Amino acid sequence: MQFQALLEEIVATLRPELGREGQVASYIPALARVPAAQFGIALRTCDGHEAQAGDSTTPFSIQSISKLFTLTLGMREMGETLWERIGREPSGNPFNSLVQLESEHGVPRNPFINAGAIAVTDRLVSLFDAKAEMLTLLSSLCEEPIRYDEEVAASEAATGFRNVAMANFMKSFGRIDNDVAAVLDAYFHHCAVRMSCAQLARAVGFLCRDGVHPATGQQLLTERQARRVNSLMLTCGTYDAAGEFAFRIGLPCKSGVGGGIVAVVPDRLTLCVWSPALESSGNSLLGMKALEMFTAKTGLSIF
Amino acid sequence: MQFQALLEEIVATLRPELGREGQVASYIPALARVPAAQFGIALRTCDGHEAQAGDSTTPFSIQSISKLFTLTLGMREMGETLWERIGREPSGNPFNSLVQLESEHGVPRNPFINAGAIAVTDRLVSLFDAKAEMLTLLSSLCEEPIRYDEEVAASEAATGFRNVAMANFMKSFGRIDNDVAAVLDAYFHHCAVRMSCAQLARAVGFLCRDGVHPATGQQLLTERQARRVNSLMLTCGTYDAAGEFAFRIGLPCKSGVGGGIVAVVPDRLTLCVWSPALESSGNSLLGMKALEMFTAKTGLSIF
Amino acid sequence: MQFQALLEEIVATLRPELGREGQVASYIPALARVPAAQFGIALRTCDGHEAQAGDSTTPFSIQSISKLFTLTLGMREMGETLWERIGREPSGNPFNSLVQLESEHGVPRNPFINAGAIAVTDRLVSLFDAKAEMLTLLSSLCEEPIRYDEEVAASEAATGFRNVAMANFMKSFGRIDNDVAAVLDAYFHHCAVRMSCAQLARAVGFLCRDGVHPATGQQLLTERQARRVNSLMLTCGTYDAAGEFAFRIGLPCKSGVGGGIVAVVPDRLTLCVWSPALESSGNSLLGMKALEMFTAKTGLSIF
Amino acid sequence: MQFQALLEEIVATLRPELGREGQVASYIPALARVPAAQFGIALRTCDGHEAQAGDSTTPFSIQSISKLFTLTLGMREMGETLWERIGREPSGNPFNSLVQLESEHGVPRNPFINAGAIAVTDRLVSLFDAKAEMLTLLSSLCEEPIRYDEEVAASEAATGFRNVAMANFMKSFGRIDNDVAAVLDAYFHHCAVRMSCAQLARAVGFLCRDGVHPATGQQLLTERQARRVNSLMLTCGTYDAAGEFAFRIGLPCKSGVGGGIVAVVPDRLTLCVWSPALESSGNSLLGMKALEMFTAKTGLSIF
Repeated sequence: MQFQALLEEIVATLRPELGREGQVASYIPALARVPAAQFGIALRTCDGHEAQAGDSTTPFSIQSISKLFTLTLGMREMGETLWERIGREPSGNPFNSLVQLESEHGVPRNPFINAGAIAVTDRLVSLFDAKAEMLTLLSSLCEEPIRYDEEVAASEAATGFRNVAMANFMKSFGRIDNDVAAVLDAYFHHCAVRMSCAQLARAVGFLCRDGVHPATGQQLLTERQARRVNSLMLTCGTYDAAGEFAFRIGLPCKSGVGGGIVAVVPDRLTLCVWSPALESSGNSLLGMKALEMFTAKTGLSIF
Repeated sequence: MQFQALLEEIVATLRPELGREGQVASYIPALARVPAAQFGIALRTCDGHEAQAGDSTTPFSIQSISKLFTLTLGMREMGETLWERIGREPSGNPFNSLVQLESEHGVPRNPFINAGAIAVTDRLVSLFDAKAEMLTLLSSLCEEPIRYDEEVAASEAATGFRNVAMANFMKSFGRIDNDVAAVLDAYFHHCAVRMSCAQLARAVGFLCRDGVHPATGQQLLTERQARRVNSLMLTCGTYDAAGEFAFRIGLPCKSGVGGGIVAVVPDRLTLCVWSPALESSGNSLLGMKALEMFTAKTGLSIF
Repeated sequence: MQFQALLEEIVATLRPELGREGQVASYIPALARVPAAQFGIALRTCDGHEAQAGDSTTPFSIQSISKLFTLTLGMREMGETLWERIGREPSGNPFNSLVQLESEHGVPRNPFINAGAIAVTDRLVSLFDAKAEMLTLLSSLCEEPIRYDEEVAASEAATGFRNVAMANFMKSFGRIDNDVAAVLDAYFHHCAVRMSCAQLARAVGFLCRDGVHPATGQQLLTERQARRVNSLMLTCGTYDAAGEFAFRIGLPCKSGVGGGIVAVVPDRLTLCVWSPALESSGNSLLGMKALEMFTAKTGLSIF
Repeated sequence: MQFQALLEEIVATLRPELGREGQVASYIPALARVPAAQFGIALRTCDGHEAQAGDSTTPFSIQSISKLFTLTLGMREMGETLWERIGREPSGNPFNSLVQLESEHGVPRNPFINAGAIAVTDRLVSLFDAKAEMLTLLSSLCEEPIRYDEEVAASEAATGFRNVAMANFMKSFGRIDNDVAAVLDAYFHHCAVRMSCAQLARAVGFLCRDGVHPATGQQLLTERQARRVNSLMLTCGTYDAAGEFAFRIGLPCKSGVGGGIVAVVPDRLTLCVWSPALESSGNSLLGMKALEMFTAKTGLSIF
């Protein structure tokens, strides 16, 4: 199949660059010791065909890609009321900035910056066991068990002073209902999910299928909601490089500092690339190159 | 033809709301005296079919929609070197803020905020008579003469202290090459172009046709450049409501405080809506509603 | 004695205004229920004469006035090394802002904003039992036992999310050595000290006596240090109204949201006023008026 | 006389450091070519004794020290109404920042940052020929003719884009009444006054004499106004090093990037030091050292 050949070509082209540039995230030991010279790519079309190349089945820490699933749970459970405490605009600031939170009275700009995901998590914690529910969702989407990396979750908790600051800051504005420690425990665990490219390409499949669960056929989100998640990914999904992603890649993407990036071609396919070395904004360097090659070769851009 | 019927339906639906909500831009007399209760809509498909309804041939002040054409001239003339002095990220701040300009040393975030368009205009002023060149471009795209509203241009110049501040601020960082007065004279004229919905829908036609001039067939921008303009419209084209536009409308749009909004459905069509009363971010209130109806009814969204 | 008559005149003049304007601090119940219509004033000259009028022996929550004693302990113990993690400039921002902390990498502007006092407290916690040491210092200065209001301390801890945010934010920049909870426990207790005007006028006596303890004659701070504390009070001691205090009152002052203000006339006397209703910056409204009357009547201004 | 000996000692002590550290202001040629290795100091007591040493009669560009005289003219002419458009608080930001101006709607924080002095100048321009009036005031205070350096004024005008930006920004908020060019012409001339240490020490004499003109005995400002000018100098007079000056020197000071600093010992004397090389905040490096020596040796501090 043609996609298989293309993914292999991308892997072959990028292999010489492996480990050359960029920096692996180093703020916790479990991330810092991941070897930089790894690269995987996987895709899944709307009608269920899959293709993959490179280290596509190696599990990695999904980190901020989890914000996509946190948002999905939030939209599924709360619909429009979710937006009472979370904005939908690009922040124009680093993902962990507290400045805007101060001038905007504790309402985070969007669900893909840390503060926004923490605020969504708080709403989930009010509804159910947010740690368990996340694994249930992901395992169902991937059709195989998904787990937390407890070492990563513990490290995040032990060093995440900035996230503690952010959550308490929002609470000082009355924007967090639950105990901060409980909210952050769920949040840190969500960041510590381990998945492979192949699993992530499958897990986000509902975003190119109008919200329909790729395995069960159930309506996970409405069509309108699914398209809105895509729009948020495009405007806010890649730290402060959203404009750059839209400009160079032209697809809704969500990235994580573990080096993974998921992308959606609406009505066509979802894909995931992974390579641990990051550029300065926190996005995978080779992942961005791979996506740029993919859209250039296929002409698949939303613009 | 079906689009014709749809545009008429939109006009009929919105007519009762005309003049009810929102505020006409009031910072200069020539804009303040425009009657609020007007609404027009027009579209043009890639293969040349046109449809229009309401006040679609009434000329209005295009204001910031001109930034789209300023950028087009800049990309056509300078290619990648244009980006040396202008960013491509959403600003997260009001369109006329000087704060970011200070912390980012005079480099504007993107070409669609005032500072960015002034910076592009400066580059154009180095190359040719930027006032004449803009009219040549627009007249060619519309296949009929397009003119400046000299009263509006004069009013903008007489009251545009904030733009004067911005241009001098960038010059203090060495980011403006030409005399500030000459640059602003071109900039204020560009904002003062008068066009109708029908003309604008035609004029942006190259953005759904991979950069090809709709009338002459000449390659105005490369395919890649045209798609990049669309991506910038989506992330930065509608003041600080870009996330909201992407979320609710899902199309690349550029708006102006004259009440016009142009939108692009890549590979399909371009359209323009106009109604003078604005919401708080400076976008046409009924224009946004019309676009939301249009995408809901047609399913035409890039997501 | 003339000062006694003056203080009585001030009380008589301000009595009709008691409880008329301003708001008692309301963020914790123990402060909110303090009756607004109280006013006390007390002074102590360098050579030991005392005068007082009104509710001068009523104990109140000293709140941020404690920052003066925290700083004194820090300077006494650490000398110049104290300034490695704390600035000496006015902040130009509200006392509990996190914005500057972000742009200045976790180094607070001065020891009189919350972040600064928390940073000093962290240094103290490394050295000794900071809660006990504060009471030892204050009891020695006042020559009678001084205690914490445990209800206030507990309330501060239960609702002080913004201070928790600030401390964790500084810790994320590596500026806090100790466990955040331990530092804040000391900080919240320091804010919860209860003292009267008479006690405070005596306790700050070393600041008009070149650092010499008013009772024991021991050198608490060097002359140079004592003058520097006075200079910091003048530039940073009264939230974001320091310019206003210098302009209208012309004395080094430190205020607290409990309604107390201490002031220093170098080489002459120290005084303390108290009235619970606050103006918008968080300073006692009648306290400011009383100090203005005092300097106008006596001509005692440092300028 | 003892002051004479002290000033000579200061000159002797600092001479070996001349031209070693710091940078002469370089933004205009006329300032950049001033030899760094110069140092002057002069003082005048309230009762008219003078002392001076080093290059105390060499004229230099007073630059921002002029803001002191601009303020004096403003207070003399307008009294309390002056404060309707100008604050009295330290800015906490660089002297030429536009950030605060944006969030505070065009009202400058205090009269000693550029924006504040421009705003005061605007008020003066409404009243009289502000350029002529300044020279009249200074010549009267010095008892000899004072003039503008027209080359410096022209250079400031030719390169002062940031001041142009600031003035237009304030005008966009309706805070400037007159034509921006006229206001800036006066402002740039005021900065371009040439005076020596000896002249400046004499010119500010009214600030240690309760507002009384040192030569004519006329009441230039009221006592209260004079003390308030001193308080503003202390909290806002030395760019963003006001806290540092208060802490280390302990006197009201006003500095300029020409390397001059004037200081006031209320009720005792005024002095002026000058040395062109600046530290990072824009204050004379050796000037600060000289003032620190002066206060250490004499014990003359307001704290």
